[in-house]
Amino acid sequence: MPVVTVQPEGVRIKVPHGSDLLTVLRNVGVNVESVCGGRGVCKKCIVEVVSGSISEPSSAETGIDFSQGIRLACQTKVLGDTVVKVPQASRQTKGKILEKGVAAGFDFSPAVKLVNVRLEPPSLKDQRSDMERLLESVEVASIDSLLLKRLPSRLRELGWELEAIIRDDEVLDVRPRSNRDLYGVAVDVGTTTVVVYLVSLKNGRIVSVKSDYNGQIVHGDDVISRITYAVKGYDNLKILQNKIVETVNRLVRAALDDAGCASSDVYEAIFSGNTVMLSLLYGAEVSAIASAPYVPPFRSSLCFKAREIGLETNSSAVACTLPVVSGYVGGDVVADIMVSGMHRRDENSMLIDLGTNGEVVLKSRGLMLAASTAAGPAIEGAGLSNGMRGMEGAIESVSIDVETYDVYFKTIGGKDPRGICGSGVVDSIAWMLISGILDQRGRIVDLGIPRIVKTNDAKAFTLAVNSDGRRICVTQSDVRVFQLAKAAVFSACLLLLKKAGLAPRDLSKIYIAGAFGNYVDPRSAMVVGMIPEFPLEKIVQIGNGSGHGAVMSLLSKKARGEAELIARKIKVVDLNTVREFQSEFIDSTLFPHRRREMFPKVIDAIGRRMPLLG
Amino acid sequence: MPVVTVQPEGVRIKVPHGSDLLTVLRNVGVNVESVCGGRGVCKKCIVEVVSGSISEPSSAETGIDFSQGIRLACQTKVLGDTVVKVPQASRQTKGKILEKGVAAGFDFSPAVKLVNVRLEPPSLKDQRSDMERLLESVEVASIDSLLLKRLPSRLRELGWELEAIIRDDEVLDVRPRSNRDLYGVAVDVGTTTVVVYLVSLKNGRIVSVKSDYNGQIVHGDDVISRITYAVKGYDNLKILQNKIVETVNRLVRAALDDAGCASSDVYEAIFSGNTVMLSLLYGAEVSAIASAPYVPPFRSSLCFKAREIGLETNSSAVACTLPVVSGYVGGDVVADIMVSGMHRRDENSMLIDLGTNGEVVLKSRGLMLAASTAAGPAIEGAGLSNGMRGMEGAIESVSIDVETYDVYFKTIGGKDPRGICGSGVVDSIAWMLISGILDQRGRIVDLGIPRIVKTNDAKAFTLAVNSDGRRICVTQSDVRVFQLAKAAVFSACLLLLKKAGLAPRDLSKIYIAGAFGNYVDPRSAMVVGMIPEFPLEKIVQIGNGSGHGAVMSLLSKKARGEAELIARKIKVVDLNTVREFQSEFIDSTLFPHRRREMFPKVIDAIGRRMPLLG
Ligand code: FES
Ligand code: FES
Repeated sequence: MPVVTVQPEGVRIKVPHGSDLLTVLRNVGVNVESVCGGRGVCKKCIVEVVSGSISEPSSAETGIDFSQGIRLACQTKVLGDTVVKVPQASRQTKGKILEKGVAAGFDFSPAVKLVNVRLEPPSLKDQRSDMERLLESVEVASIDSLLLKRLPSRLRELGWELEAIIRDDEVLDVRPRSNRDLYGVAVDVGTTTVVVYLVSLKNGRIVSVKSDYNGQIVHGDDVISRITYAVKGYDNLKILQNKIVETVNRLVRAALDDAGCASSDVYEAIFSGNTVMLSLLYGAEVSAIASAPYVPPFRSSLCFKAREIGLETNSSAVACTLPVVSGYVGGDVVADIMVSGMHRRDENSMLIDLGTNGEVVLKSRGLMLAASTAAGPAIEGAGLSNGMRGMEGAIESVSIDVETYDVYFKTIGGKDPRGICGSGVVDSIAWMLISGILDQRGRIVDLGIPRIVKTNDAKAFTLAVNSDGRRICVTQSDVRVFQLAKAAVFSACLLLLKKAGLAPRDLSKIYIAGAFGNYVDPRSAMVVGMIPEFPLEKIVQIGNGSGHGAVMSLLSKKARGEAELIARKIKVVDLNTVREFQSEFIDSTLFPHRRREMFPKVIDAIGRRMPLLG
Repeated sequence: MPVVTVQPEGVRIKVPHGSDLLTVLRNVGVNVESVCGGRGVCKKCIVEVVSGSISEPSSAETGIDFSQGIRLACQTKVLGDTVVKVPQASRQTKGKILEKGVAAGFDFSPAVKLVNVRLEPPSLKDQRSDMERLLESVEVASIDSLLLKRLPSRLRELGWELEAIIRDDEVLDVRPRSNRDLYGVAVDVGTTTVVVYLVSLKNGRIVSVKSDYNGQIVHGDDVISRITYAVKGYDNLKILQNKIVETVNRLVRAALDDAGCASSDVYEAIFSGNTVMLSLLYGAEVSAIASAPYVPPFRSSLCFKAREIGLETNSSAVACTLPVVSGYVGGDVVADIMVSGMHRRDENSMLIDLGTNGEVVLKSRGLMLAASTAAGPAIEGAGLSNGMRGMEGAIESVSIDVETYDVYFKTIGGKDPRGICGSGVVDSIAWMLISGILDQRGRIVDLGIPRIVKTNDAKAFTLAVNSDGRRICVTQSDVRVFQLAKAAVFSACLLLLKKAGLAPRDLSKIYIAGAFGNYVDPRSAMVVGMIPEFPLEKIVQIGNGSGHGAVMSLLSKKARGEAELIARKIKVVDLNTVREFQSEFIDSTLFPHRRREMFPKVIDAIGRRMPLLG
């Protein structure tokens, strides 16, 4: 039987003659992407055959440049010993970046730690107070006030032998000696989506992740509408604060249930998010952020008692916000940068955070420029006819057979489709362009096929009909909303590059972040003209950088220090004050762009009705 | 007309021939004590005639040693130019010690101060957050969280010109520029009595003083019964905390009304008191204080937000406790020492704090020993048949005509008598001893005079009948209660002296402190055997050292540091572990003491039916 060697892993496996590479790779645990189920349609299963004996290209592979060994895994049969390289872009790598990020740049040094203590019981010779006795023993300066109040009975119940939970220079808790773990929560407070990571502070493991819509959504889709609501009534600030705290508490409870942990074992919460979200979480006025010069109430990391905002953690737990840069460049961006590590590398690079607020950071030599842009919630799947958050039943990737217009899709959890999430929207629109269903101006073309239906005089393209008989569509107005979103992101990228005197080719890397940034197919993002055309292998998807940065901060004091430095270093560019922004924005609403010369490969691919392959 | 020169003031006044010195002195503003109204009975009006021409001694002055020029001012008529010296002990000097204390040892350096600020308004060029902008301008590290939350609108309402109220390294408030004062409150939390001082932090002036019973009294008279109540039920600790906070709030409100100030202008509260009171105020468990080794929950000064315990001050105000020494030697004793200055003087001295808890401190060379003793509330006028707090209508000083048994007394405010306060009780019992109404064992002798009445088979001595016809008496059982109280104080004094190998004659000074320590007549205190027999001119009454020490801490950061040092330096002697305590205590219940040789002058005076004169 032929032997297949998988790179870069170096795994070797004997396989039956004629096996297809997609199946072979999955059998050795290399999860290659596939939407069309091996039909050769989706082009997500690209691999590089380094050497060996394989089948001739199939008709589905027409148009692929084979000079570099590029093949579709699903179409390639093994005929003899073969060496195959699986590029990062073809792998399902969700959440992998995080551990790498922590391992690469940071030591494991959580602010919260556990110390075993045996206290000398008091005597007439040693009448030190309970507080002194404990603090002197652990060499720490202060103690949480709630703990202090009940310290006398706690110490005596414990018989003077205990575990002290210490954060920086404060004792937070005392508890019986045991092997019990202690936890922190890292929270990404997005305008649309909130993600909670429950993390062991003993070993750094993420034991559960939960996410849900931000409960503030009933008061508006974007930060501007939240600010408007907050300033409109006296109690509204408090209402918004309660909503987000409720959301976080619900997710923390779910994560604790999931992992079988108690809320009393959670000693720290780190919050990442944009400036408005962090301000509302803390309960600070946001009015001044709304109008020029867009001044935030605070910028450095704030640490306070979690109980002050009503978090359901240990009663002595500490909550911290990540530092923010300005009114519109928040802690989420600082976290993204930290996770990407771009600030530490001596090369030009760009970071694009895809979310309700799109943020772009450009690093050029010592300079870091950042811009924020109101992309709107479409990018997170919200605000579209059939949009939904990335949860079970959401269509997350899509491909279209350019001959038959058959749609292949994958839903999260493999469930019956209920709607389309962000990455599914980008895929859908990219494939509608490739298959000619959409034109350059974003109009749905009347191809006279049954999938294109008319509702209220507007056209819609049907991705799927679910088991209830409901059509899941991309409508003409969805496309319009999406055009505005992607134009916002792209024009921000372009204007920052211009400001630094760079072109995309001068960049060594593009990092893509965002709550759904790990799932979006960068090839589709290029096809629609949301991000610059750029070599696929130089695109790094860091996933939910905001959440992962919060996890890093939870696990490493060094990371916290670095976050402060990053926040201070960034120069914010206010796009509204850049003269050419408006015209650039309008040009960017076209697919992929009015200046087609910026997207030669995309134009070529669309012309050949093929997706981008590399 | 003859000229009278008053020393040490040096005041000179021409007076009509034959004027009595008591009237003369009062006319020049030297308020000489008098209870009997110039009848020669009370012997409180002692002066020293240095030179001059005066009348012969009257019959009321029989028994006085004239060799040192000692005369009763009320009995002495001016016949020619005269120089007269008025000793401190004969003056009404209430509250005078305080200003001296502050002036003597401490700089004026309140922790809370006011800074005028003009901020640069934000611009697109300067997008610093509101917090940074303020903190960088005043060079302070942190900001109160409540202030931070509303800082954006506050700064804009103020138009970037403001007064910042700063405490140590935290901005507490911003307000319009004006001449408005800012205030602190110093609170003496006694087991029985609470005193609130409202103090200007701009000029150090005490603008109002208010006092009342501690609202916790319904849950027990002494610290032991408070502890017992606190540990008996789950919510009881909270109930006790609420009671004391309510009392303080009521007094703060009264003081603010009095001075016409707003609670929002109060930025700091300093609390002095015994360890149990300070623990209850903070809401900390007191259970461990009750039994050996009597360990307090905390010892160092604690600072926290006043709002945490519900104080009605500025919402960002800070509250601090004075440091305590041990479970039974509290912040009140530290404050006493600080006010006395005994820790700074290179001499042997003793401090006696008279209150529900009696505390004694002995300084001998580098050593400071302290002992606490449960004197009970009798010493503060509570727990006696006609006892009352030192307020209007309380009999505060007493003398008895040894011939007629007529009683002369003074009430606070000169009002109709309603009861007897602490200093009145000590005076009454001293005079009952001098006039033979009480014997050495504390029995009321049946002299067959109308003032001695029998109620329920027990005798009582009538001090006064008020306008409602109610008799105000010292009963036999009052005397018994008092004997226990004074024995507790005296045996503590004696045992500490013994521990240090000293006798009273080795002391350079005795300081008397306590909520009523400024008003008690030290001569009476010696006659009853509550304090050692000691030269009157070496007794210094520092008044409410606990409250005054809190005022000092409010006004001087140096005083705070010194309080910490004092608290750490003191060695506590547990009297219960001293073998001879029990027998010494019993000996001390006699008047003045079983070992009469310790009180030669008192024995002599009682024998001659005269008060102590010097
Ligand atoms: S799986 Fe190979 S093209 Fe879809
Ligand atoms: S006033 Fe002189 S003895 Fe009373």
